Amino acid sequence: MISFIILSHTATCDPGFSLNDLCGGAGRMDLLARTIQASLCISHGIRKDVTCYLVMSNDPRGRIIRCTGQELRRFNPDERSTAALIKKALAVPAGSLFRETSPGIAIRVGGLAELLHDLMEGKDKEKRKIAILDENGDDIRESEDMLCDLYVLSDHQNITEKEIATLNAYQPVRLSLGPTVLHADHAIVLLHNERDRRIRYNSQVTMHKAQ
Amino acid sequence: MISFIILSHTATCDPGFSLNDLCGGAGRMDLLARTIQASLCISHGIRKDVTCYLVMSNDPRGRIIRCTGQELRRFNPDERSTAALIKKALAVPAGSLFRETSPGIAIRVGGLAELLHDLMEGKDKEKRKIAILDENGDDIRESEDMLCDLYVLSDHQNITEKEIATLNAYQPVRLSLGPTVLHADHAIVLLHNERDRRIRYNSQVTMHKAQ
Repeated sequence: MISFIILSHTATCDPGFSLNDLCGGAGRMDLLARTIQASLCISHGIRKDVTCYLVMSNDPRGRIIRCTGQELRRFNPDERSTAALIKKALAVPAGSLFRETSPGIAIRVGGLAELLHDLMEGKDKEKRKIAILDENGDDIRESEDMLCDLYVLSDHQNITEKEIATLNAYQPVRLSLGPTVLHADHAIVLLHNERDRRIRYNSQVTMHKAQ
Repeated sequence: MISFIILSHTATCDPGFSLNDLCGGAGRMDLLARTIQASLCISHGIRKDVTCYLVMSNDPRGRIIRCTGQELRRFNPDERSTAALIKKALAVPAGSLFRETSPGIAIRVGGLAELLHDLMEGKDKEKRKIAILDENGDDIRESEDMLCDLYVLSDHQNITEKEIATLNAYQPVRLSLGPTVLHADHAIVLLHNERDRRIRYNSQVTMHKAQ
């Protein structure tokens, strides 16, 4: 089981946003929808072993939306229907524990620190590894540590100093994806492909196949 | 300059489709919009050296929509606004030559055979190379021929026998992307990443870096 965490800085936490203006009025909700799709969808199927978290900080209390591949039902990959699930989740009164709002979708209040605390700490979680993207990090094709449990990505804005400080407490692996800076959803596609290759082809074979 | 050609089998050629039902009523127009986005968009920018063609065969006369990175203006990456540009193009009476319908977007009638004839034939085009995706093809990371001029991908349906026959006349390179079958937009992300690495890092260095 792996997780993708998307740090959203601008998407509204108000469920009144219009599904007709995801890119503008909803604060780049289109990008968040695509990150869910990239995390969970393959051709004619869902990655059952993936959970995607949206950490939405455009509200003092914050919201975390959880999308669990194993539990999603009748999920379409288009932006509008995905955004409709987010809208439905945001309309539910949220507390400090996750509450399911549709099959596979749940919401709670909170931010990155609370989420990482839940996911990374505790006796059985001591060996969990976390990765962040960094243009100066190790190339994913070469890194010996790219198979992590959590991958943290930012939306169209840079990750903040405060978020970096929170993440640094967990000694994240720093990964780079190639020479071009990409949208977060496209970055997830590249992470998945490298993981798929290492897991399915066997790590050593893949890394040295080109010799 | 490179081109992506997306073979669309189900998307409507009727401009009356609803922007609120891209995935259903419009015949997976959401996927076409995302293939344009994956072909042309990088973080905070457009790939100026890319042209994306949608070959829409869900109509006896067929339509080809051309999106030219170099000429696009005020382009947002979300599905709805991209689909709105497609809708606008489909509403224009189309002939056998491309006609611009908005900056960087043009439409003509025709199908794959006509498009390939225009792009691949003629005195100055003799050396153009074309690639198609094939699960049994050469791995893009290993192929010595992956840097092609045209890449042809299919929508959510398999490429047809007739399309394969048309493509075979141009002796396409057959490329595979990894162990998981992906959506067309995600396939484009992987093709771009491999191209970016070879062009920017230098092909030989990239291919053998892991030794």
